[in-house]
Amino acid sequence: MNRQIILKSRPVGLPTTANFEITEAPALSAKEGELLVKALFISVDPYMRSRMSDAKSYVPSFEVGKPMDGGVVAEVIESNHPDFVAGDAVLGHLQWREIQSVNAQHVTKLDKAAPLSYYLGILGMPGLTAYFGMNEIGKPVAGETVVVSGAAGAVGMVVCQIARIKGCRVVAIAGNDDKNAYLKNVLKVDEVINYKTEKKMKAAIARTCPDGVDVYYDNVGGEISDAVFANINKFARIILCGQISMYNATEVPVGPRPQPLMVKKSALMQGFIVSNYSARFGEGIHQLAQWLGEGKLTYQETIVEGFETLPETFIGLFHGKNTGKLLVKMKD
Amino acid sequence: MNRQIILKSRPVGLPTTANFEITEAPALSAKEGELLVKALFISVDPYMRSRMSDAKSYVPSFEVGKPMDGGVVAEVIESNHPDFVAGDAVLGHLQWREIQSVNAQHVTKLDKAAPLSYYLGILGMPGLTAYFGMNEIGKPVAGETVVVSGAAGAVGMVVCQIARIKGCRVVAIAGNDDKNAYLKNVLKVDEVINYKTEKKMKAAIARTCPDGVDVYYDNVGGEISDAVFANINKFARIILCGQISMYNATEVPVGPRPQPLMVKKSALMQGFIVSNYSARFGEGIHQLAQWLGEGKLTYQETIVEGFETLPETFIGLFHGKNTGKLLVKMKD
Repeated sequence: MNRQIILKSRPVGLPTTANFEITEAPALSAKEGELLVKALFISVDPYMRSRMSDAKSYVPSFEVGKPMDGGVVAEVIESNHPDFVAGDAVLGHLQWREIQSVNAQHVTKLDKAAPLSYYLGILGMPGLTAYFGMNEIGKPVAGETVVVSGAAGAVGMVVCQIARIKGCRVVAIAGNDDKNAYLKNVLKVDEVINYKTEKKMKAAIARTCPDGVDVYYDNVGGEISDAVFANINKFARIILCGQISMYNATEVPVGPRPQPLMVKKSALMQGFIVSNYSARFGEGIHQLAQWLGEGKLTYQETIVEGFETLPETFIGLFHGKNTGKLLVKMKD
Repeated sequence: MNRQIILKSRPVGLPTTANFEITEAPALSAKEGELLVKALFISVDPYMRSRMSDAKSYVPSFEVGKPMDGGVVAEVIESNHPDFVAGDAVLGHLQWREIQSVNAQHVTKLDKAAPLSYYLGILGMPGLTAYFGMNEIGKPVAGETVVVSGAAGAVGMVVCQIARIKGCRVVAIAGNDDKNAYLKNVLKVDEVINYKTEKKMKAAIARTCPDGVDVYYDNVGGEISDAVFANINKFARIILCGQISMYNATEVPVGPRPQPLMVKKSALMQGFIVSNYSARFGEGIHQLAQWLGEGKLTYQETIVEGFETLPETFIGLFHGKNTGKLLVKMKD
């Protein structure tokens, strides 16, 4: 049986496994110009939550009754295109399906020199998101203080390390002590804050950022951001990458208005999605691969095995269960 | 008697005339390197409200018991500096005092070719604020839609006209129909909205901006901004110049968090104060003067006469009484 996972119903608030269903996918073959591919690794990412709603967003919504889709690394098992042969590894935006056919022009052949899962992480969307957010918006300067929320996530861990490479003081915010120990001991950030046990976030930011906050890479939003905002310096740059604390909100989240402070501080806040920079992905991948090769970047994945684990693995993102990039590996 | 106006007490919420007092200033003469000057025009500006509080801000607070200060155009009545003679007109950051001495290096000699009051408006701080906010943050492109809040204020009126010079569709928001008639008929903006009588601001923005909002020049903040935000386009730029609706707030203003939408729209929001660009004021004044000379810029002032009217004229800013730049002229 060729399995697929469909969106069964739209979640209200946090998604549950009841919003998904495993069904049988049609048998397929590769037509002219197509490849038949077998999934190896399937990515789960926070941004997928917004696609489960039918509200207009920057990416189209999933359709109820149709398969979920996202970043997938797959192996070609049958090629009907001259540039590919069986055994090639490819990256594509594919369905949550064990075996599927795809137009060969919609996938990228992968260099097997790097571990294939890396193309869903540090050499893929999360790595590029960290890279372009920091380079194009944050523009950190040596000696400045960079605060990262969601620091133990796929994007956040790369951000922390880029900030260190740039010579900045790095303060990482994450939700448990194991993650924070990893950030401090392995990724060598200067300070860590556990936002779940820290009672006074504003004071904690002030304590760990004695010279104030120059760059804030924000993956989380909400009250964590309020605490960081209270400590920004003049000409601070705030990179809005994601707002994971808001994704399951059922009403418009309300909080202190940031604008008066932003005027006082001549601060900049900018939202982005990585595809804004798609014309420059080559540059980003090259730089990230170089840092990896030089040992300046450490990479951490959390790999869950089994196609059928996709729904609960995805849901785990919103319970802070992963350290680094979270993805699902198909059983051999 | 040489009069001065001091800050008698700090306001809570809206300032009142009881927060000010007219007292007698000491008799003065010009020492070596100083000028004795007589005020001709004294500026009142919204940003002064934040200086009346003792909260830390981007400019130092006024001190209770000391004279207010701000932009003043004055005439030299006695010079003890070789570059100035009696009769020269100067611009400086001076006290609210009829006659005062000042270090000659702290004032700028004015070209009397333009009306002297213009140096407190279109050729001064408000004009430069409009110019640099639009050029450095808004970066409007011909054909885009620009929304301006506080459009009938000293800054807003210049912003509207710069947007038109750049070939944009301009939607102006102000608080009464007379101001809006002026904006529409004289300054030739495309659409006007009266935020006081308009019941459904969000729908009004949608109606007047059928292609969405690309640039939002925000002088006001609060619920007006919420309505504009709901209509922004991808890659929108939001210029935070002032937040006059918040200046008298006694608690931190709360509202819908803008961040989730800013991520969706890849939007940019940036606060600034004009002095960030002080090294380039010459460029700004030159461009504004050129547009004035070519008839591309129309300038409007509201001039109130009499030194003693300063407190109530200043307070009038927060009741929307002025069209264009508001200032006080000394009686001859």
